[in-house]
Amino acid sequence: MEKSEIQFKSFNLSINAERLFSRLTKLGQIGRDGDGKLTRLAATDTDKAGRDAVVVWMKEAGLEIAIDRIGNIFGIWRSPDAEDQAPILMGSHIDTVINAGIYDGCYGVLAGIEVIKTLREAGVVPSRPIAVAAFTNEEGVRYAPDMMGSLVFAGGLPVEEALATVGIDGTLLGAELERIGYAGTEDPGFLQPHAYVELHIEQGPVLERMGISIGAVENLQGISWQRITIEGVANHAGTTPMAMRRDAGHAAARVVTFLHDRAISSTTPTVATVGCLHFEPSAINVIPSRATFTVDLRDPNEQRLKDEEAALADYLEKLAAAEEVCITAERLARFEPVIFDDNIAELVECAADRRGLSSKRMTSGAGHDAQMIARICPTAMVFVPSVGGISHNPREYTSESDLVAGANVLLDVVSRLAGVL
Amino acid sequence: MEKSEIQFKSFNLSINAERLFSRLTKLGQIGRDGDGKLTRLAATDTDKAGRDAVVVWMKEAGLEIAIDRIGNIFGIWRSPDAEDQAPILMGSHIDTVINAGIYDGCYGVLAGIEVIKTLREAGVVPSRPIAVAAFTNEEGVRYAPDMMGSLVFAGGLPVEEALATVGIDGTLLGAELERIGYAGTEDPGFLQPHAYVELHIEQGPVLERMGISIGAVENLQGISWQRITIEGVANHAGTTPMAMRRDAGHAAARVVTFLHDRAISSTTPTVATVGCLHFEPSAINVIPSRATFTVDLRDPNEQRLKDEEAALADYLEKLAAAEEVCITAERLARFEPVIFDDNIAELVECAADRRGLSSKRMTSGAGHDAQMIARICPTAMVFVPSVGGISHNPREYTSESDLVAGANVLLDVVSRLAGVL
Repeated sequence: MEKSEIQFKSFNLSINAERLFSRLTKLGQIGRDGDGKLTRLAATDTDKAGRDAVVVWMKEAGLEIAIDRIGNIFGIWRSPDAEDQAPILMGSHIDTVINAGIYDGCYGVLAGIEVIKTLREAGVVPSRPIAVAAFTNEEGVRYAPDMMGSLVFAGGLPVEEALATVGIDGTLLGAELERIGYAGTEDPGFLQPHAYVELHIEQGPVLERMGISIGAVENLQGISWQRITIEGVANHAGTTPMAMRRDAGHAAARVVTFLHDRAISSTTPTVATVGCLHFEPSAINVIPSRATFTVDLRDPNEQRLKDEEAALADYLEKLAAAEEVCITAERLARFEPVIFDDNIAELVECAADRRGLSSKRMTSGAGHDAQMIARICPTAMVFVPSVGGISHNPREYTSESDLVAGANVLLDVVSRLAGVL
Repeated sequence: MEKSEIQFKSFNLSINAERLFSRLTKLGQIGRDGDGKLTRLAATDTDKAGRDAVVVWMKEAGLEIAIDRIGNIFGIWRSPDAEDQAPILMGSHIDTVINAGIYDGCYGVLAGIEVIKTLREAGVVPSRPIAVAAFTNEEGVRYAPDMMGSLVFAGGLPVEEALATVGIDGTLLGAELERIGYAGTEDPGFLQPHAYVELHIEQGPVLERMGISIGAVENLQGISWQRITIEGVANHAGTTPMAMRRDAGHAAARVVTFLHDRAISSTTPTVATVGCLHFEPSAINVIPSRATFTVDLRDPNEQRLKDEEAALADYLEKLAAAEEVCITAERLARFEPVIFDDNIAELVECAADRRGLSSKRMTSGAGHDAQMIARICPTAMVFVPSVGGISHNPREYTSESDLVAGANVLLDVVSRLAGVL
């Protein structure tokens, strides 16, 4: 549908900005260590303290609390007139990485509570229940894989298997959830959403660089992770003529520049990154005998991602022959792209337009709970700018005006989906 | 002079191959640990045991032993008729790297003893004294710098300063030489050589690849070592479009390929090596914010080495602007090339020719005591093939026929310089 076709009802509500900022700040103080660093790894004491605060705020908004067996927290507004309807679900997560910022995940959960509170305070009567979720262990730092709570909720991983996950500290996730009082009784999937909308900081530089307020996220990149090992021959840097070398380090550098040049000259949103690279024996006067590096390829189109993987494999084969080195590639991870619901993405654009905010369709470069929930209901995301594209870092920052704009777009989109706009 | 102009006297001597192999093997057993690894770091107990064996063999060849204050051992054949003449000096070193092979250095010392013994046994009367040296701490593993004994002998480093060197194990070189009984009394430079010839394994692949027996080493590469640091910006590998990156890792890879492509396409013997390369933060999904790597540039021509350094500096400046990264270069070491004596190199070629051995003029890519002794007298080196170009490794190997060939060429060259051929 064209933007102009969406007709909103008259509606003058906006979220309470001060309340949202105050709660973001409060939640951002929970889990700080002696050095002031913020860390709330999944199912730790600090995660429990954060969950407790979220539950208090959900209850204060009049929401019914439900906790499922993987510890996902749901605050549900069961409108009496719509008891039997599938709910509109918002949400994200409140667990963090180590030494985190205060916005990643928390913004989506707290804005979801704020949206419902705003609607309730205005006496609005939605045609469906509206709920907000805080999913367990999105970051995956303590227990792998990441996005675990939403994956289990969407039926992608048996709950028993998830609960048996052993953490980096040797703990069992199931036992830790029991310990902190968040091993719930609801079976994952007890709630069947009508639609899911996740508000999140972009965690990238695009919106800020382009001066745009709202990202209408229409898809999420597929990810291909590989570890490449190149075996050459260690020789003396002084006595070995260039033409007699089998230099694993040089061959690795050629792969790095190949990946970069191919991605940057492409008209597609493909990104390619070599984040880790090690040489052996790593001596100033020894030609590297071995180079090991990682390749992170991402594209929102599955066929293009496959094409990129094939182009790399082809290049490695030719390089091995040309440089007389042995190259092996090991797959570390592979996720197909996720296509979000076009109607909801369109709604996000229209809601932004209605509020006089600039917006653009975009791809999520990072993983989010929304990619899991997309398996079971129409889903999309709303992004707001991240200053400097920084996240997973204390310097993570989004301006207050952008935070308010994103929450109001979420309010409008959810209101529309719940028949009140 | 043309090869044909050198006329050798009638001379039918050859070294005793079995004796040479036997001693190489015996010396190669001194300093093996429980795992069979060979290590004789300078001025350790194992170095003392090796030195003691060498002194025994020198005495057995009728040589007068002299030890200077830096521990260099000299075995001197003072021909009665030539007491006042400057000696012809041969030599190398017997200290090793950790987990070494048996040829590096030892071959030159033991072949030198063998040459003198062969001449003495034949009743030859040279017109000059002939001597062989085992220089202290050529490898520089325990005490920096390397080639220390020959440097001190040639007057390039005050002996007091060298003796005060603190080792990687916290010991003082002077105290350790005292402890092992090799703190001699001769002042460095007590012997003023007429010429110096060092026989050594190539430690590179050139002779073996070309099927040539003897290298007539005419110069020794200059060395330029730098550490380059590139500072970019760490960003999310998924959310940061290619065009918005300041990727320190990619910039580093561009330098590696630039150096390689420039050196390999050059008609000069320039070699360029990046042996160490580190990315930070070194995470698969984070664009590197920092890359640190070493650059080892070598060329036997000082002006060309300067040109290579300038080309790199120019490239780094342009790269920093193009990639929006900050690049700094730190000089780690710089040695000018050493030009050996052309007449002695010519003698080496002629001696090989006389014995029906193939030879070629070549450059030493590694450092050797000869580069220090070249400061005080006409000097050149003789190389024999290293199988696979391997050295500083237990797999270091030179065939017996090549070892004999090299020692006989040394015999001829020294005999000629001493007026007996």
